[in-house]
Amino acid sequence: MNLKNRVVTFGEIMMRLSPPPYERFFQARELAVHYGGSEANVAVSLAHFGINAEHVTCLPDNDFGKAANAHLLAHGVATPHIGFAKERMGVYFIEHGADHRAPKVIYDRFDSAFANLDPSVFKWTEILAGASWFHWCGITPAISAPAAQACHEAIRTARKLGVKISADINYRRNLWQYGKTAMDVMPQLIEESDMVVGGLTDFENCMRIQSSDFEESCKKIQRAFPSVKKIANTERESIHASHQKLSAVLWSANSLHRSKEYEITNMVDRVGSGDAFMAGLLYGEINQLHESETLELAMAASVLKHSIPGDVNTVTMEEVKALVKGENIGKLLR
Amino acid sequence: MNLKNRVVTFGEIMMRLSPPPYERFFQARELAVHYGGSEANVAVSLAHFGINAEHVTCLPDNDFGKAANAHLLAHGVATPHIGFAKERMGVYFIEHGADHRAPKVIYDRFDSAFANLDPSVFKWTEILAGASWFHWCGITPAISAPAAQACHEAIRTARKLGVKISADINYRRNLWQYGKTAMDVMPQLIEESDMVVGGLTDFENCMRIQSSDFEESCKKIQRAFPSVKKIANTERESIHASHQKLSAVLWSANSLHRSKEYEITNMVDRVGSGDAFMAGLLYGEINQLHESETLELAMAASVLKHSIPGDVNTVTMEEVKALVKGENIGKLLR
Amino acid sequence: MNLKNRVVTFGEIMMRLSPPPYERFFQARELAVHYGGSEANVAVSLAHFGINAEHVTCLPDNDFGKAANAHLLAHGVATPHIGFAKERMGVYFIEHGADHRAPKVIYDRFDSAFANLDPSVFKWTEILAGASWFHWCGITPAISAPAAQACHEAIRTARKLGVKISADINYRRNLWQYGKTAMDVMPQLIEESDMVVGGLTDFENCMRIQSSDFEESCKKIQRAFPSVKKIANTERESIHASHQKLSAVLWSANSLHRSKEYEITNMVDRVGSGDAFMAGLLYGEINQLHESETLELAMAASVLKHSIPGDVNTVTMEEVKALVKGENIGKLLR
Amino acid sequence: MNLKNRVVTFGEIMMRLSPPPYERFFQARELAVHYGGSEANVAVSLAHFGINAEHVTCLPDNDFGKAANAHLLAHGVATPHIGFAKERMGVYFIEHGADHRAPKVIYDRFDSAFANLDPSVFKWTEILAGASWFHWCGITPAISAPAAQACHEAIRTARKLGVKISADINYRRNLWQYGKTAMDVMPQLIEESDMVVGGLTDFENCMRIQSSDFEESCKKIQRAFPSVKKIANTERESIHASHQKLSAVLWSANSLHRSKEYEITNMVDRVGSGDAFMAGLLYGEINQLHESETLELAMAASVLKHSIPGDVNTVTMEEVKALVKGENIGKLLR
Amino acid sequence: MNLKNRVVTFGEIMMRLSPPPYERFFQARELAVHYGGSEANVAVSLAHFGINAEHVTCLPDNDFGKAANAHLLAHGVATPHIGFAKERMGVYFIEHGADHRAPKVIYDRFDSAFANLDPSVFKWTEILAGASWFHWCGITPAISAPAAQACHEAIRTARKLGVKISADINYRRNLWQYGKTAMDVMPQLIEESDMVVGGLTDFENCMRIQSSDFEESCKKIQRAFPSVKKIANTERESIHASHQKLSAVLWSANSLHRSKEYEITNMVDRVGSGDAFMAGLLYGEINQLHESETLELAMAASVLKHSIPGDVNTVTMEEVKALVKGENIGKLLR
Amino acid sequence: MNLKNRVVTFGEIMMRLSPPPYERFFQARELAVHYGGSEANVAVSLAHFGINAEHVTCLPDNDFGKAANAHLLAHGVATPHIGFAKERMGVYFIEHGADHRAPKVIYDRFDSAFANLDPSVFKWTEILAGASWFHWCGITPAISAPAAQACHEAIRTARKLGVKISADINYRRNLWQYGKTAMDVMPQLIEESDMVVGGLTDFENCMRIQSSDFEESCKKIQRAFPSVKKIANTERESIHASHQKLSAVLWSANSLHRSKEYEITNMVDRVGSGDAFMAGLLYGEINQLHESETLELAMAASVLKHSIPGDVNTVTMEEVKALVKGENIGKLLR
Repeated sequence: MNLKNRVVTFGEIMMRLSPPPYERFFQARELAVHYGGSEANVAVSLAHFGINAEHVTCLPDNDFGKAANAHLLAHGVATPHIGFAKERMGVYFIEHGADHRAPKVIYDRFDSAFANLDPSVFKWTEILAGASWFHWCGITPAISAPAAQACHEAIRTARKLGVKISADINYRRNLWQYGKTAMDVMPQLIEESDMVVGGLTDFENCMRIQSSDFEESCKKIQRAFPSVKKIANTERESIHASHQKLSAVLWSANSLHRSKEYEITNMVDRVGSGDAFMAGLLYGEINQLHESETLELAMAASVLKHSIPGDVNTVTMEEVKALVKGENIGKLLR
Repeated sequence: MNLKNRVVTFGEIMMRLSPPPYERFFQARELAVHYGGSEANVAVSLAHFGINAEHVTCLPDNDFGKAANAHLLAHGVATPHIGFAKERMGVYFIEHGADHRAPKVIYDRFDSAFANLDPSVFKWTEILAGASWFHWCGITPAISAPAAQACHEAIRTARKLGVKISADINYRRNLWQYGKTAMDVMPQLIEESDMVVGGLTDFENCMRIQSSDFEESCKKIQRAFPSVKKIANTERESIHASHQKLSAVLWSANSLHRSKEYEITNMVDRVGSGDAFMAGLLYGEINQLHESETLELAMAASVLKHSIPGDVNTVTMEEVKALVKGENIGKLLR
Repeated sequence: MNLKNRVVTFGEIMMRLSPPPYERFFQARELAVHYGGSEANVAVSLAHFGINAEHVTCLPDNDFGKAANAHLLAHGVATPHIGFAKERMGVYFIEHGADHRAPKVIYDRFDSAFANLDPSVFKWTEILAGASWFHWCGITPAISAPAAQACHEAIRTARKLGVKISADINYRRNLWQYGKTAMDVMPQLIEESDMVVGGLTDFENCMRIQSSDFEESCKKIQRAFPSVKKIANTERESIHASHQKLSAVLWSANSLHRSKEYEITNMVDRVGSGDAFMAGLLYGEINQLHESETLELAMAASVLKHSIPGDVNTVTMEEVKALVKGENIGKLLR
Repeated sequence: MNLKNRVVTFGEIMMRLSPPPYERFFQARELAVHYGGSEANVAVSLAHFGINAEHVTCLPDNDFGKAANAHLLAHGVATPHIGFAKERMGVYFIEHGADHRAPKVIYDRFDSAFANLDPSVFKWTEILAGASWFHWCGITPAISAPAAQACHEAIRTARKLGVKISADINYRRNLWQYGKTAMDVMPQLIEESDMVVGGLTDFENCMRIQSSDFEESCKKIQRAFPSVKKIANTERESIHASHQKLSAVLWSANSLHRSKEYEITNMVDRVGSGDAFMAGLLYGEINQLHESETLELAMAASVLKHSIPGDVNTVTMEEVKALVKGENIGKLLR
Repeated sequence: MNLKNRVVTFGEIMMRLSPPPYERFFQARELAVHYGGSEANVAVSLAHFGINAEHVTCLPDNDFGKAANAHLLAHGVATPHIGFAKERMGVYFIEHGADHRAPKVIYDRFDSAFANLDPSVFKWTEILAGASWFHWCGITPAISAPAAQACHEAIRTARKLGVKISADINYRRNLWQYGKTAMDVMPQLIEESDMVVGGLTDFENCMRIQSSDFEESCKKIQRAFPSVKKIANTERESIHASHQKLSAVLWSANSLHRSKEYEITNMVDRVGSGDAFMAGLLYGEINQLHESETLELAMAASVLKHSIPGDVNTVTMEEVKALVKGENIGKLLR
Repeated sequence: MNLKNRVVTFGEIMMRLSPPPYERFFQARELAVHYGGSEANVAVSLAHFGINAEHVTCLPDNDFGKAANAHLLAHGVATPHIGFAKERMGVYFIEHGADHRAPKVIYDRFDSAFANLDPSVFKWTEILAGASWFHWCGITPAISAPAAQACHEAIRTARKLGVKISADINYRRNLWQYGKTAMDVMPQLIEESDMVVGGLTDFENCMRIQSSDFEESCKKIQRAFPSVKKIANTERESIHASHQKLSAVLWSANSLHRSKEYEITNMVDRVGSGDAFMAGLLYGEINQLHESETLELAMAASVLKHSIPGDVNTVTMEEVKALVKGENIGKLLR
């Protein structure tokens, strides 16, 4: 356990229900249960890397809320400040695609305990005391006004306490349904963040930064959002649902780093691969690695997530480093 | 197929999710998927008895709505008048108890496609044309104002067309949350019904009939609700979650019939056993059986349901009759 | 539902039993149950495309016959003219191959209810009234003399009623065991058909058309079988059991159309991919699409079937069109 | 291994397919695979008791025939004289009942490799050399003329070689469909047997012995069939499918022994419980135990079978004896 | 969370592997994985009762050690002082019995990380600071000399710090294999304990207290071990593996309390029922309940455990209290 | 059955436990059970090729030992000389990798019944009488002194009786923990063998043959170990855990043969692929095939093993030959 460095994440956890491999929603007779959420997934991945992680959220006060909490605890994430309320669990259903058949998602997350959270419940000064990073993503402010408010308060408090802030912009058009647009809310949250992950669509919709080139966008961002010092993204080329190519970029100190490209030909589960990437970036930051090393670790962590069912990445840093070094590739160690 | 007699049922269908046998919600890693709803369960059971059944409802316009429709079709229920809308599927979770551990239910049914239905979608005169019975239950008017309105319109139309009406009172205190109480709504629906299933609590809360005796209640009901000619109920003595005793009563023409008592010692799934009973009553009515014969068939159908996983009773009338006659008890026929 | 266009299909439905993924027959401890048959699979696929489909067959009068019927109903196929008889269910066992290991099939279909059907049971004039297409395949006349007779009567009636006829030649040498050869029976059935699917072996064995070139064969067929206006086929290049390349051709009005080639690298289940192709052709015909559009839709439908377990293709036309357009390739839509 | 005593059994082995616990045929999506047959089950049970057992049969020359052979080998039964032929595997489907719902069986065993066996394949003199017992049951001569012939030849050869003969009469009215009745065939097979298991119906239909009393029947049998020295039977009182009472009788040397009665309240699988009983009788005979001890062991073995899924009894003689002695009842030994 | 009261438990956690319901070791193709150990099970049960619990142990430094730790964390047990070492995981296999077939256990726990623990690793003064109870059981000192030493040090430290001590004597003859007998070691551990659970065999083998009467034994114990103020035990009458009767006694302040008797007729899993009882006793002690109330809660907790698969009791105190009060017996609450 | 040629193999059989496809150890809730061991796997593969095979080992005298024996019997391997002892079963856990995630193995095999075997139990002269080949591998002498001794005695006896000897060097550094190094033991075992499988690392550590070239090594080996006439090896290029290229070499009579290269893109289970290769070599030797034919069969057998779950190769020689000939590649035969 790295006690000196503590990362706090904040966001919704949902129950995820998915049919058995290859089966479709229409005929599913059983659904596998996982729990996940973008920021919580980052915390889990960090805990498996040996980083001290805590997740903050609001859960329904029933057996599924307890199960989501138990999921975090089991993966080594601390949860002392989770709130419980009399509301429903957000749910999402995922039908994994296969070969030329695309995956399908049905969301059923409205009116969840998290969407209806009471922002005054979270004592951010206490929660963030001694943390080195606070991580949020653009889903949270899109869910509801109180979620956005709590997120903003967390960011402001982190800023005040000298806690660094990372953001995964994660723009989802369908989510913004409480009367605000992403552009109404996101810029002020991003402008207090130190590191962001996003792509051209995210930049356009959440920061009004338009460009068809990532590097140019980064330069514009740094002018408009001077506190944002590092900007990263993953790039995915999709041959079909089971076969994709993955690479990543990290812009920092005016230079762009590009990772090795990986070809994934037997994909198991891509959900959470962006969160695995984010956890890799934070690992690099916390350990003050060189940008190119950080980027390769983050990319390899993300690639490994594609081989693991569920939302969370359970690989250790040793496994990540072995992939970066090309050691033990597909080898059966005994 | 009994073509002359057609039964139309109306009510919500939910997705039911339950952990594997004996497992608890807290640690469930997979959930079995079933579809069911009180009135739809009656229709399915009738279809397995060879009665021409149609179910009317409103489903979400997504893969789960299609799956619920497919569930009805597969069991031989017609669904030509089902509406589809852009809303969520109502869900309920059930943790089956075992031995001394009670079962547990978590509902997640608010804001469903059915709750938000548009009553004008259902052309009841067309739907009910030529039907012999219309069946509804007290859950429907409890869900929402439009659901109550649609139910009332169906009942009125049935009455006008000379279609007989059966009602399962099914009082659930927690459901009435749209500003009306059961007493505001139920009496006018019940007073147009010909046959009702209910117990003392139902009578008290939905008909303001108070008594500690079933027979006395029936007499009071007939005075207050003269169209109600038959009143039935099942009685359950619970030793524990897997061991229960079951019997039933049917009041008709001023006399009370009491069924044989069954002892269930290895219960599989009790959900839908009341609907199986109701289907047995309707079978008896449609085939103009003697009340005591009808009651024994309904009771045996209900008892058999306890041995079948899911909400619906898939036994044939031959199986029901064999149990009533005590034939082939536990016998391995080859 | 496209009410104006109705497709009627006729043929056997079998129970299919297959070991869990990658397991072999020799050690299988459980078998997955599916129901399927070439023509029924076409009907199911059409129903998922929104086409009004009915399947006609003869099933055993037991729980498995009822289950096969329920399978069709659940997928939206009408079954008002299915016959039930006191015979066995045809069964086939399939061991899916994997990587360099080929799949294996064990048939156990002799003496089934379908093989012993009574042709007089099917009132084809009534069944086919108002239909736009009748579809049959070469398996049916190969099964037994009464099956061949019923198929011939259906074709003759369709012809008489102006219902168009499609045929999947599907030559299987092992099936012709009741004293007739394919050449004794097939030519007279094919000569009344409007559209056929087949390859060089089919043409040689069922039409005595010999050529090593598809286009040349088509020309010969049109001279010999003038009613046959469209001839199509799929072409499969097999790298191994999980990796294959697929393309298709459609000959019409003296010109040959060739589809895009797809590379399938993570095959799930290829059974029924020919039936999915046929359904795509019929969809194009019914909607009067251009041949090249029809061919691409049929090819994409067939490709998607390879990703779905079981005999039937449950993709919607929207999914087919997205693949043809190259939209959302492997994308996780949320 | 008891090398001095060898038991040879002869009869068909079928593939048994059954839905998951509590599920019905109608909706089964998977079927558990077992292999079994009355006489083979006796051999397996004997092998687990440490008796040298060999089973003789005819199996289809495909993966399922090999799997049935492997099933016997795995349980320690020798199979050097099994014949393989180009025919189908007999199959039976069983839907286990539960509580008040009775079990259901669908047979699909006609035209199997065993039904079509070539009697000349079995060199009985070689097979039976050195055996102490030959066991057959009344299903075999009911299946087909060649099966009856092979069975008769085995019995005659055993008699000639001084091998003792046991028979389970096992009368099944539905099986006799090849032009002979049980009464045409069974008496001459039984009259050469030393020990038979059967009840009043068996005696009436296969030996023309009529009586409403078991003991009286035994006396009549011994007069009519003087070689039959021991007659046994199990008696089952059925409360419902999961709750039954079991006891057994053994008539020998003019006296009737009656076993302890067992109450089975959580039945798992009753198939093969008669075969387990027969194996217990043979164990007692081979070890020359007193009749009452033999009977108690046979009864306890049969009772234990009800707790084991599949057709075969895998309990050891130590487990049987512990139950007879009432040792370690329900105890968790550690 | 009850922050004032903290319970520390110490003992081995094993991986438990068990065949699917009703299957036997001999043919198991898959094994369910659970983690458990007597003292850890007490901690888990306390955590579900809302008591602050910490477990101390030594685990192998591999994925299974991590998984055992995650198991505790998920159930809300703190694990800050667990040691990890380069050794194997102790394993035990359990074949659940059914009906008249007894359960079977195969231990494979020798040379585990716990057996080889280094006692100096545990800083008991720090671990036990502020705790209200320390709980140990007689398995720990039986495993190995270092385990016994660590246990003794913990007890001595607890005594010194004023932490109360509870002991489950749990005598297992087969475990004492490192050169010491129970009588060599146990008396000095018990004599410092405040509350013990045990029966006549335990008392005889671990305390040299001989008597055929529980109450008399208690009196003798209090004379010989004056610090032991409360003595409790569960009594089990076994009809068969699925049907047992359970009651309990608690001796305190010279009087004997006897609980209600429960009849368990559909047992799911009895492992850990003694630990559930112990947790109930500790709950009563911590909340200073009357002995008879404590006893009824402990008994009901133990009864509920029999309905839950795995080693640990996941019921809440509300569920326990409902059973004691006879509320909602087998009721489906909605 | 090839009665003239009999192969005897000797070595440990372990229980193998593996999480469901794609799942990791950390969260596994169930483990699939297989049995396997390098030499036993060779015997099983030979039995499926129709070769008379016997395996000799020492197993624990419990249900898992019996199950391992049943595993061999079911696959047609004879086991008349297996010893049973009061010790534990060796276990190994395997987490299959997927895509870029490497597989993981945790061994738990120390102190097994095999490691503690009594060499005097095996009467090699009797066991090997009439055998044509004896096969051993380098794992056995690495396990323990008695295992090494038994192996040496077997080899010496085989040599004396004119039984040919094959060896799979299989060097595993971690195993040699009983005070001897591979170099202390292996040379004298190898020098009596006729055919060996190994690579450069094996040669260096077990024969002190150093070279970076396989052919050169072979020449050196033949000078140093003149009885070794054939040396083979498989070569694996690993793209990732699911995608690998495989080829093989066979050196014989001073010339090196190189097989076709296969590309495996959808790997199922690579464990035992070396044993499948060895079985192919022995098949070729026994049938006196040309080296290049033998090599191609061995290679194809090994490739096919990668598609089969578990340790053993269940393909027939017909399936192997079809792959070598390129027949029915990925074809669905019906």
